[in-house]
Amino acid sequence: MKDKNLEQLEMDRRTFLKTTAAAGAVGLMGSSFAQQQPTADQVVRGKNPKLVVLSPRPVVLESTLELLGSERITSKANLFVRNNIDLPGLNTTEPNVQPGWEVEFSGLIDKPFKVTVEELSRLPQTEVTTVLQCSGNGRSFFNPRPSGNPWTYGGVGQVTWRGVLLKTLLEAKGVNLDPKARFITMNASTQGGAAPYEKSFPISVMEYSSAMLALGMNGEPLPAVHGGPVRLVAAGTFGTANVKWIAKVEFTASESSGNEQVPRYRVPVLPGVNIPILPTQPGSRYNYTLENSRSNWMANINSFILSPLPGASVRGRRVDIRGVAWNDGLAPIETIEVSLNGGTTWRKALIERDNGKYGWYHWVSPQLLAPGEYEAMVRATDAVGRTQPLNGNVWWNERGYEWNGIMRVKFTVT
Amino acid sequence: MKDKNLEQLEMDRRTFLKTTAAAGAVGLMGSSFAQQQPTADQVVRGKNPKLVVLSPRPVVLESTLELLGSERITSKANLFVRNNIDLPGLNTTEPNVQPGWEVEFSGLIDKPFKVTVEELSRLPQTEVTTVLQCSGNGRSFFNPRPSGNPWTYGGVGQVTWRGVLLKTLLEAKGVNLDPKARFITMNASTQGGAAPYEKSFPISVMEYSSAMLALGMNGEPLPAVHGGPVRLVAAGTFGTANVKWIAKVEFTASESSGNEQVPRYRVPVLPGVNIPILPTQPGSRYNYTLENSRSNWMANINSFILSPLPGASVRGRRVDIRGVAWNDGLAPIETIEVSLNGGTTWRKALIERDNGKYGWYHWVSPQLLAPGEYEAMVRATDAVGRTQPLNGNVWWNERGYEWNGIMRVKFTVT
Repeated sequence: MKDKNLEQLEMDRRTFLKTTAAAGAVGLMGSSFAQQQPTADQVVRGKNPKLVVLSPRPVVLESTLELLGSERITSKANLFVRNNIDLPGLNTTEPNVQPGWEVEFSGLIDKPFKVTVEELSRLPQTEVTTVLQCSGNGRSFFNPRPSGNPWTYGGVGQVTWRGVLLKTLLEAKGVNLDPKARFITMNASTQGGAAPYEKSFPISVMEYSSAMLALGMNGEPLPAVHGGPVRLVAAGTFGTANVKWIAKVEFTASESSGNEQVPRYRVPVLPGVNIPILPTQPGSRYNYTLENSRSNWMANINSFILSPLPGASVRGRRVDIRGVAWNDGLAPIETIEVSLNGGTTWRKALIERDNGKYGWYHWVSPQLLAPGEYEAMVRATDAVGRTQPLNGNVWWNERGYEWNGIMRVKFTVT
Repeated sequence: MKDKNLEQLEMDRRTFLKTTAAAGAVGLMGSSFAQQQPTADQVVRGKNPKLVVLSPRPVVLESTLELLGSERITSKANLFVRNNIDLPGLNTTEPNVQPGWEVEFSGLIDKPFKVTVEELSRLPQTEVTTVLQCSGNGRSFFNPRPSGNPWTYGGVGQVTWRGVLLKTLLEAKGVNLDPKARFITMNASTQGGAAPYEKSFPISVMEYSSAMLALGMNGEPLPAVHGGPVRLVAAGTFGTANVKWIAKVEFTASESSGNEQVPRYRVPVLPGVNIPILPTQPGSRYNYTLENSRSNWMANINSFILSPLPGASVRGRRVDIRGVAWNDGLAPIETIEVSLNGGTTWRKALIERDNGKYGWYHWVSPQLLAPGEYEAMVRATDAVGRTQPLNGNVWWNERGYEWNGIMRVKFTVT
C-alpha cells in the first residue's frame, strides 16, 4: 500500500513539474514561482548545479551529454541520481558514516547471518568499473511518452566500485546455498521511516555479474546519496538491480511479487519463455505479470555521440566524432559505426579504449568534412550480434524502459 | 533407450560417411565402394540428385546455394530433409495417402479428442510461407566442428504451407485449455515400428507462430518425406519444432524430459532466466539441463549471398550481388547490408521483395566493380536490433546449433 501511495505521489509531482516547466517555457509563470525549483546542488549537497532536477523528492537528477563527455570516470558530482526512496539526511555526496550498519542474510541458506560494514571492509575487496544506468534512461524519446521521469540521455554514468563479492562473503562465512534458491531478494533500509524497497534478481545473473556489496566509489567511501554505506552492485545490469542502503539480502525460490518487481521495471516477453522481444503497439496497455514480462535485468547495447554536441558548430575539415558505447558485458562490443547519410552507408569507428567488459568503450570516427550541415548517427554491435534499433520506438513499452534507439546528432561544420 | 541406440547408430554412420568421403577425396577408395553411396533421388524418390546425402537412413539431404537461388519458393524436389526417424515406405515426395490417419489431443484440456485428416481437411485452411531450417544448419562452420550432420548452408528452404491452425481446431472442437498448460508436447507416429520422437514447445511460441497442422505444401498435398499426411508447422521456429507425421498432441505443464528435448536441440543460457547468450569456450563440454539451456525455438536472424556463388567468375562492371535474409518474424528485417572491404564500410542493399513476415527477404546490392578479386559479406538487421555476429564461432556450442555468422563469398570480376 505504501508503495502505491508513493507512486501516486510521484505521478502528482511529475505532473506538477511538467506543468511548471511547460508554463515556464511560454513565460506564464511568475519568477518567484520559478525560483521555487531548486537546483541540483540544493537538492543534493555536492552535486554539480548543471545536473537537471527531474524530481526533488525522492531525488532524481539527470546528468548531461556535456558532463558525460568531460570525464573518463563520472565523478560523484556529475553522476545521475534515481532514488525511489530518500533516507533522511542522506542527500549528500559525502559518505554515510553509520558504524555498525548491518546487512542481514536469510532465506534459502544453511546459516542465516548478519554482517556489519566494519566486517565487510576487512574482507578481500574487488574493484570493477561499470556503466550505471537507469532503465528509464531515454524514456523521453518514446512516442507517445510513457509516464515516469522524463529522462533524455543523462541517466547514465561510468563509475568504479570497490567492495566485497557476494561469493567472497558467503565463502568467508562458510555459508551454502540451498539448491532451490533461484533469486536474490534485496531490501533497502527503512531507516527514518523510509518506504520499503524490495527487488529480486536471478542468482545466475548475480553470479554472472560478480554481484558485490560495494563500500566505495571512485576511490572514496560510497557517497550517501548513491547508497552508502553499502550498496549492491551487479555489473552489467540496469540500476534498478543495484539496491542502495542495503539492509537485507534473502535467497528465495521465486521473484518478489512486490510493486517494484511487478508491474514496475519490466518489459513484455513471450510468456514463460523470456524471449525478450514482443513489441507492443505504441500507446497500448499491457497487463504485466511475472510470467508475461521480465525485469530490467541486463543492460542492452547502446552508444552515444558526446562530441560534437547536438547543435554544435565545429571547425572543419578534420572533425573527430567521439563518444561512448556499452552493453551488459556478456560479449565484447565488436564494432561501433558512424553514418553521416541517414544510414545508407556506415563506417567503422576506432575504439580508443575500453574500461573493462562492464565499462564503456571510448570511440572516435575521424572525418574530413566540408562546411555544411550534418547529422551523425552511431550504432554499436557486439560479438554475438546484438545491435541497436534504427527506430528505438519499436521497443515502445507502457513504462518506457530500456530505450536504445540509434542516436542522431545534428551539427554544423564551418 | 531406443533413442540412445539411434543416436549411437547415427554417430557410427557419420564416422563412416566422413571416412569414405575423405578417403574418396584422396582417391584411396575403389570405385565399386564409392558407388555404394546413394544419390539423393535414390534415397528419396522425387528428390533432385543434386542434393547432398548427409545420411541415407534416417534420411538427411542437404540442398545447395545454387538450388536455393534458382527458385522463389523451394520446390519439393530441392527442399532439404532432416529426419530423426524414417517411417517405412515414406521416402518419397509423393503424398502419404492414409485414410483415417488420426491425431490424438490430450493432456491439460477439458475434452480430450481425436481428429482425422479427413476432418482436418474440411476445417478452414490457412496458408503461410515460412523459412524452414534445421537448427544444425551451418554446423560445419563451427570450429572445432561439433558432432552431428555436417551441414553447410543447405539445411534451409522457403515453402508455403496450408493447414488448420491449432487455434481453429480447438475452437471447432469447443475445447478449452487448462490455465496450467505451458507446453505442447508432440509425438510423431511410431507406425511400422519407428522410434518414438517427442518434442515440447511453449504454448506462447506456438500461439505467436500461428502453429498449424499442415496438410499441404506448395499447393500440393504434403509430401510423405516432409511429414505427410499431417505435420505440425510453427512459423518462425527452427525445424525441430515442426514434428512430422504427427500422431499425438499433448498439452503439458512442463517440457518433455526426453532425449530430443534435452540434451539434444538446445543451446546454453543463463540458468533460470533464458537470457539466450552465454558463449561457451569452443571445444568445451556443457552439462545441458532444462534450466541451464533452452530449446532451439525461434530462428535467429540470418542472410545468404546466393549470387555470385562462391568462387564464381562474373562480368563487370555492373555486378548485382543478390541473396536472401530471414528471421523469426517477431520484428521485420530493416536493413540488409553488404561490405566488400572486410567490414570497414557497409552499404544498404535494396529489398526486392519479402514473402510475409515468416518468409525470406530477397535483396540486391548493385555494385560497379573493376576486374579483380572480391570478397562480399552480408548482414541483416531487424527492427529490434538483432543482427548477425561477424564471427559466428562466438556462438560455439557443443552440438553446433543456431549458426548465423556473417557469410563471406569470394568471387572474381572479369
